[in-house]
Amino acid sequence: MVSIGVDYYPEHWDREMWIKDADLMKETGVKTVRMAEFAWCKLEPEENKFDFEWLDEAVSIFSERGIDVILCTPTNCPPLWLYEKYPDAKQHSRKGEPTAIGVRGHRCYNSPSIRKFSERIIRRLAERYADNPAVTAWQIDNELDAAQCCCPNCTEKFRLFLKEKYGSLEKINSTYGNIVWGGEYSSWEQVKPPLGDYPENWYNPAYMNDWIGFCKDSANNFAWFQADIIREIIPNAVITTNTWLCGNTCDMHGMFSKLDVVSYDNYPTTRIPDDENALYSHAFHLDMMRGVKKKNFWIMEQLSGTPGCWMPMQPTPLPGMIKGYSMQAVAHGADKVIHFRWRSAAKGAEMFWHGLIDHSNVPSRRFEEFAELCRTINELEIPESTEIKNDIAIIMSFDQEAALNLQPQSDGFHYYNQLKLYHDGITSLGCGCDIISEHTDYSAYKVIIAPTLYLTFKDTAERLHAFTENGGTVILTNRCGVKDENNNCVMEPLPGVYSDMTGCTVAEYDAVGYDKVNIVMKHKNYAVSQWCDIIKNNSAQVIAEYSERFYKGTPCVLSNKFGKGLCYYVGIIGNRDFYRDFLANALDNAGIEFIKNLPDNVEITRRSNSEAECIFVFNNNNYHVSIDTENIKAELAPFECVVYKTIKLID
Amino acid sequence: MVSIGVDYYPEHWDREMWIKDADLMKETGVKTVRMAEFAWCKLEPEENKFDFEWLDEAVSIFSERGIDVILCTPTNCPPLWLYEKYPDAKQHSRKGEPTAIGVRGHRCYNSPSIRKFSERIIRRLAERYADNPAVTAWQIDNELDAAQCCCPNCTEKFRLFLKEKYGSLEKINSTYGNIVWGGEYSSWEQVKPPLGDYPENWYNPAYMNDWIGFCKDSANNFAWFQADIIREIIPNAVITTNTWLCGNTCDMHGMFSKLDVVSYDNYPTTRIPDDENALYSHAFHLDMMRGVKKKNFWIMEQLSGTPGCWMPMQPTPLPGMIKGYSMQAVAHGADKVIHFRWRSAAKGAEMFWHGLIDHSNVPSRRFEEFAELCRTINELEIPESTEIKNDIAIIMSFDQEAALNLQPQSDGFHYYNQLKLYHDGITSLGCGCDIISEHTDYSAYKVIIAPTLYLTFKDTAERLHAFTENGGTVILTNRCGVKDENNNCVMEPLPGVYSDMTGCTVAEYDAVGYDKVNIVMKHKNYAVSQWCDIIKNNSAQVIAEYSERFYKGTPCVLSNKFGKGLCYYVGIIGNRDFYRDFLANALDNAGIEFIKNLPDNVEITRRSNSEAECIFVFNNNNYHVSIDTENIKAELAPFECVVYKTIKLID
Amino acid sequence: MVSIGVDYYPEHWDREMWIKDADLMKETGVKTVRMAEFAWCKLEPEENKFDFEWLDEAVSIFSERGIDVILCTPTNCPPLWLYEKYPDAKQHSRKGEPTAIGVRGHRCYNSPSIRKFSERIIRRLAERYADNPAVTAWQIDNELDAAQCCCPNCTEKFRLFLKEKYGSLEKINSTYGNIVWGGEYSSWEQVKPPLGDYPENWYNPAYMNDWIGFCKDSANNFAWFQADIIREIIPNAVITTNTWLCGNTCDMHGMFSKLDVVSYDNYPTTRIPDDENALYSHAFHLDMMRGVKKKNFWIMEQLSGTPGCWMPMQPTPLPGMIKGYSMQAVAHGADKVIHFRWRSAAKGAEMFWHGLIDHSNVPSRRFEEFAELCRTINELEIPESTEIKNDIAIIMSFDQEAALNLQPQSDGFHYYNQLKLYHDGITSLGCGCDIISEHTDYSAYKVIIAPTLYLTFKDTAERLHAFTENGGTVILTNRCGVKDENNNCVMEPLPGVYSDMTGCTVAEYDAVGYDKVNIVMKHKNYAVSQWCDIIKNNSAQVIAEYSERFYKGTPCVLSNKFGKGLCYYVGIIGNRDFYRDFLANALDNAGIEFIKNLPDNVEITRRSNSEAECIFVFNNNNYHVSIDTENIKAELAPFECVVYKTIKLID
Repeated sequence: MVSIGVDYYPEHWDREMWIKDADLMKETGVKTVRMAEFAWCKLEPEENKFDFEWLDEAVSIFSERGIDVILCTPTNCPPLWLYEKYPDAKQHSRKGEPTAIGVRGHRCYNSPSIRKFSERIIRRLAERYADNPAVTAWQIDNELDAAQCCCPNCTEKFRLFLKEKYGSLEKINSTYGNIVWGGEYSSWEQVKPPLGDYPENWYNPAYMNDWIGFCKDSANNFAWFQADIIREIIPNAVITTNTWLCGNTCDMHGMFSKLDVVSYDNYPTTRIPDDENALYSHAFHLDMMRGVKKKNFWIMEQLSGTPGCWMPMQPTPLPGMIKGYSMQAVAHGADKVIHFRWRSAAKGAEMFWHGLIDHSNVPSRRFEEFAELCRTINELEIPESTEIKNDIAIIMSFDQEAALNLQPQSDGFHYYNQLKLYHDGITSLGCGCDIISEHTDYSAYKVIIAPTLYLTFKDTAERLHAFTENGGTVILTNRCGVKDENNNCVMEPLPGVYSDMTGCTVAEYDAVGYDKVNIVMKHKNYAVSQWCDIIKNNSAQVIAEYSERFYKGTPCVLSNKFGKGLCYYVGIIGNRDFYRDFLANALDNAGIEFIKNLPDNVEITRRSNSEAECIFVFNNNNYHVSIDTENIKAELAPFECVVYKTIKLID
Repeated sequence: MVSIGVDYYPEHWDREMWIKDADLMKETGVKTVRMAEFAWCKLEPEENKFDFEWLDEAVSIFSERGIDVILCTPTNCPPLWLYEKYPDAKQHSRKGEPTAIGVRGHRCYNSPSIRKFSERIIRRLAERYADNPAVTAWQIDNELDAAQCCCPNCTEKFRLFLKEKYGSLEKINSTYGNIVWGGEYSSWEQVKPPLGDYPENWYNPAYMNDWIGFCKDSANNFAWFQADIIREIIPNAVITTNTWLCGNTCDMHGMFSKLDVVSYDNYPTTRIPDDENALYSHAFHLDMMRGVKKKNFWIMEQLSGTPGCWMPMQPTPLPGMIKGYSMQAVAHGADKVIHFRWRSAAKGAEMFWHGLIDHSNVPSRRFEEFAELCRTINELEIPESTEIKNDIAIIMSFDQEAALNLQPQSDGFHYYNQLKLYHDGITSLGCGCDIISEHTDYSAYKVIIAPTLYLTFKDTAERLHAFTENGGTVILTNRCGVKDENNNCVMEPLPGVYSDMTGCTVAEYDAVGYDKVNIVMKHKNYAVSQWCDIIKNNSAQVIAEYSERFYKGTPCVLSNKFGKGLCYYVGIIGNRDFYRDFLANALDNAGIEFIKNLPDNVEITRRSNSEAECIFVFNNNNYHVSIDTENIKAELAPFECVVYKTIKLID
Repeated sequence: MVSIGVDYYPEHWDREMWIKDADLMKETGVKTVRMAEFAWCKLEPEENKFDFEWLDEAVSIFSERGIDVILCTPTNCPPLWLYEKYPDAKQHSRKGEPTAIGVRGHRCYNSPSIRKFSERIIRRLAERYADNPAVTAWQIDNELDAAQCCCPNCTEKFRLFLKEKYGSLEKINSTYGNIVWGGEYSSWEQVKPPLGDYPENWYNPAYMNDWIGFCKDSANNFAWFQADIIREIIPNAVITTNTWLCGNTCDMHGMFSKLDVVSYDNYPTTRIPDDENALYSHAFHLDMMRGVKKKNFWIMEQLSGTPGCWMPMQPTPLPGMIKGYSMQAVAHGADKVIHFRWRSAAKGAEMFWHGLIDHSNVPSRRFEEFAELCRTINELEIPESTEIKNDIAIIMSFDQEAALNLQPQSDGFHYYNQLKLYHDGITSLGCGCDIISEHTDYSAYKVIIAPTLYLTFKDTAERLHAFTENGGTVILTNRCGVKDENNNCVMEPLPGVYSDMTGCTVAEYDAVGYDKVNIVMKHKNYAVSQWCDIIKNNSAQVIAEYSERFYKGTPCVLSNKFGKGLCYYVGIIGNRDFYRDFLANALDNAGIEFIKNLPDNVEITRRSNSEAECIFVFNNNNYHVSIDTENIKAELAPFECVVYKTIKLID
């Protein structure tokens, strides 16, 4: 059954407190605790001297109360003696210098010492808890990122990576176009990480594409190396790692292909934006996590109180947020929601990243709401096997994201933002959608939305063609087909390989940035910004056109019949209003039902299996809403999530 | 008598000019010159070769004209030959690298070479001028800061500092909670300064508390080491150092406990803010300086012209500012006001930090105003023994400041700002107040205002309890009692150790940052921001409550009887208006008289001794004001300061 | 004849494409290609192994089609093998560390290895193409800057530079005023580049003046060293380098004094500013380039499409810009306009710095406009010998610019901006002006405008005195005569050496920054900002006075008869409106004709020789304008440039 848990740090508190905490958890309805991700120095205080007794005791206290344990490999923070004795363990900065130790996450994934000592501690942990039924899952490291380590080991590995990919320096030189700034490699020694303090977009983009790819591979390999050790000892171990979005986001699709469950750290903002055009992207990220393996996922860290630390403290979660945002996660496919953290830390740099219980150890309003969440979830008895199925998918690619971060296309243009705008439009129509990788099978969907397919992968292009020819609907946008798979520009009219599908080509483009440009669609005006494709229409039908600038009257949104299907081309980036209207029309054409009069920021999702169906209606607003649609009539408090559960009759 | 002086640099000018300058000073009424704080390389041009003749001559020229000399130890800028020959002399950056020489203030306080050569030059200076009656005081170095030097010597000293404080690594590990990010020390070699480029709030706050404490100790020790040398030779020397506020402000309370006089560099802004809610903080700083030793102080550098250098030039001081801001300093307890500087430098990076006389050497409007200042002060004959006595004190702590800088509590929250708001409120009521350290005796006061006593020191807490119990009034605020003395969070309801005094506890807090939240006090609305405590009232009386958000109707300002006294708790940060109204009521309750209809930004202060009393009325506005109170009726020009001097009749 | 060209990179494309491209260029009317500035690693792939065949072929393909070639020395990007084998080749940063290789332009001008290998490759190139008539000119390096390299070689050269200039450390110490912060040199080893991360204005300004001068000398010497090699082999070679404005702009006046032609990279912004007070500075820069050698110049890189790369992409050039901005360059004295670049790069970090033809290789709107430009220019047959002659000159000095960048005088104050305001005022009156160096002969002019002659050079001052005495009109401004030639403040009333000419002195100044201050000139109000001189009038006539602040009613703009001439003093920085009105009056007094009713942002220029005259009327607006003056009646489309060509009858 779907359940609620908490992150717990026995090593932070006296042992007497463990029992009090475990008792209160049991009473509250907590089903899982995650432990030990920063505890290496407690488990191996000196090289090759181990102490597991405290952890044994902690695990047994929880297991005695029927609370499962997720154990972590503690590799995020190797002990200081390791860094001191084995300097290769340290990440190196873009200046080629070893990182100063003192914060966290400084280990190099490719360091032989890190590999050697990690293997030993993981092996010991796995061996010790292999047969302990309380330990139900394993988390690898903590919030892995595709760190850009520039140490000698990584440098050497990077050269090997390129040797394997290209075979020769000549091939690298020609692929990168190194001649452009006269920087052709003539020896392997010249191949280096991007040292120096230059902004990323000063480097060769094809080279950076490989470098970032290598760093992502290094993170993946480090995770897999750990999973392999655990599986060698516990063949049926359930293995995850808590992923997150950051400046060096991992290749989640790749990484989790060899892990069992996706888990995600979910911290929706506690500050409601004033701007009604602002996007609520929590649901987007949840759908994205469900898409990584196309199955349900876990939240490993869930908002529990005021965030603070890296930034000053933020507003406290509003009434409804603690429960509501957890319910929302379940509504979008979370099977476990583990709150970070049971109680705020009294020490350390994270002390103001608040837990469910404040430093005072007096449970407050937020804890009461959490207790209510536990009761609700435990009463609902939602099977983990209930799945979410949608007719619509949005393609999300970490390769595209990295390439677009490297070379921002115009002021204000962000890859994720365009994805979120489509996601928001679909949500506003009461529909659900999957967020899938390029490599997912498209055949289960009626509509594939593919924004900014900037890098062109042959396989994606072929399958999108086939999908459309077979009757599917595809929505393509500006900046599709711009680059080849090496991050070099294609030498054909845009959208490149997709031009036959779109029935139109881009004659020129206007990177308008923050400027506003008006367009007209069905006699209604919309202000677009950031990008305006100036389009040569060959065979498409015009849906919207510009109403100003020197390209006034030319089309910006078109649709084109291709095979049995339909391909839209959206040459602009619009506002929320545009996407709602555009998508209503597109879904209508694709025969997908939607709701016309849903209040803003209300999400309707459905989890079902052969036996049961749960419909979730979530109000992501800080005000009451009344829903009055054909099937749903409800009054929702701020952040309230109503669940309609139906047990299916067996035919 | 209170007197006026100037900073003078004989080493910048030809000797003929010294005489002209000294003649003009005498004519103008200047009583003191400060000299030689950057002159080491002139005094010891080669290692162990000294040249004091030029300084002898300069001193004698001034002394012949009845002008006293304050001599400086020149340790701020050691000669280049010293840095070249003895590299340990250089401060090291957070990267662990020696600082490049070429600006100023690069010496390491803990460097053996700096100590050795400083001792020799100071000894020579002191010996030479010990018997010269013209040299009336000594300034140590220049604008000392608690520099965070990361050199090997400082690293070693820091380890010793921790060894003395904690005795063992185990004790450090448990105090810091090093386990939180798995960073427990297992050898002393692992203990280092905060190397790396991380923001300060990424480091462990208890560790940083010690590190900053160590750096402050190093600065103090450097100052005391110098003072000891001077005193060995001149037992009754008057010793000061010109202190200032910066990113690494020294522990003034500690430092000056072993020096004779506080002196301060006073540069009020020349740009009048447009915002009427902006605070004028000059008087706050002056009161703070008087509070450091609880006695009168000196201004060692006083605004004399347009500032510029580190920033582009600023507006020229408005008419009245040159005289008025000096008078204001005297009004708040300055016994000497030394203007920086006699004439603007024609060379060097500070050339646009303007002096009283411009580069042209033609005295202008500002010099005329300065001359008028000298006349006024000389005519007034204010005894140095006149003191300022107040019934109200605000507690100011450099420990609290450092801890709050390290972990800003919310957007826009600044420790000093809250202190200034209280100071401004008291000033607006025509009252004066002292700004005292936590360690000052409270018994002389009727009201103690203690904003943000964030770190909890047992002694402070006990004495505040006793003060209230004995009938005193204490005002506590949000973020009191949050931490223990090691900068770790306390595990009890806030305001922690003060909860009995306040009669209420903080159930939760909302770090609202720049958002505005309305409260109501006596049917009047005020907009507060940055912080809202959500309060559980136990025994207190409600003074104000929130009128919006989910805690609408709950109290935010309360008062509680405690023993014979009264304790206020202010759970918000208000605007100027709030403090004026709140404090009027609080002073009324405490039986302190105040003025109701004083114009904005007018300050009334009183210096007196057994024989005389001076009442100062200062208009800190760029417009005329009319004062019409019971005792004072006056018309003041912009920045005018009127002084009412009374000779007391001996009974 | 004036002609159009393109920048072309044969090394980026397959050889088949060279022919197609050359054919299309010929058809379009392109007359010149520039080649090979980044091709060193292709020309010398291994040390001392050369390959010129590909370049031979490329040159011959173009020359066969009647297209001239400008060949570049490829020293901007030495091959990686050179950096690898000869580490002294690398520039060193302000931290004293070698620059990471991977972007471009990292070579040290003073590196013995760079000198040695540059000489060899240049010699080879020059020898190979000496007798090839297709190669009509040589470009040295690419966008040289006065890089502040802090390597050991540069350090040593800097010491020699100072030894030659000053002879002794004593002289340096006294010139710099090193005593100010106790930093007198006592050995040459102590003399270093400005190492460390301090802002530039923390260093001694006289020292920085020498350091920047040294860096400019190094760039000049590197250019001349190259020119000498070429000239040794091709005595009558036409040699240029494509200059630009950047943070370390070269001393163009010095550098081009030993080169044959000035060429400039011209990228007017494609985003029209919303603010009508914004300045269009393209024409200013063009006039500045013509002034460098006081003769016609070339554009070596001209705007061809959307810029992007270092920043996100910008709006596409508006219709008319591609042609119009090239015509504007010709109108201001360009004899060649070489567009950057023929086709956008498909690879490398500059791929989004768009060329005339997009990546698709399908010529678009912008190419059509370029083709029209070629036709127009080829039809016009404007002789290269046609020159621009003006009665008005503005003095522009790279020394002043560097000194003012080092110590910005007030918030918002920029040296160039004040120059541009005068230039804009003159343009708005339908007049032309030259932008000349201080060292140019003034006698050809009626009016010399000399804004911010901040550093005082004896020669300039003497010649300006003589010019005025002989009947000329000079306009001086605030911040004239502030410093001596070493960047130290003069010790006399400002404007220092010019005080006799102005008939007034500056009693004080108010650096008002972004504040607005109202002045009145002939009963009309103007808002000034940044700077207000408070003036003591001796013999001048008041033209405008302040109408607020404490100096209300005092003069801010004056004129003074001096000898047979007139000297204006403008003590403020005004808005566009002020300069138009002030200059109309000043030109009237000087007997220079101007146009009163010219629409905003229209430029009228005239190129002529003994046989022909071309009048250019350019509309630098994105809207149509009607011109209706005595001599010109025209309707101009956005960015249209109309040319009236007259063949002079021989008398």
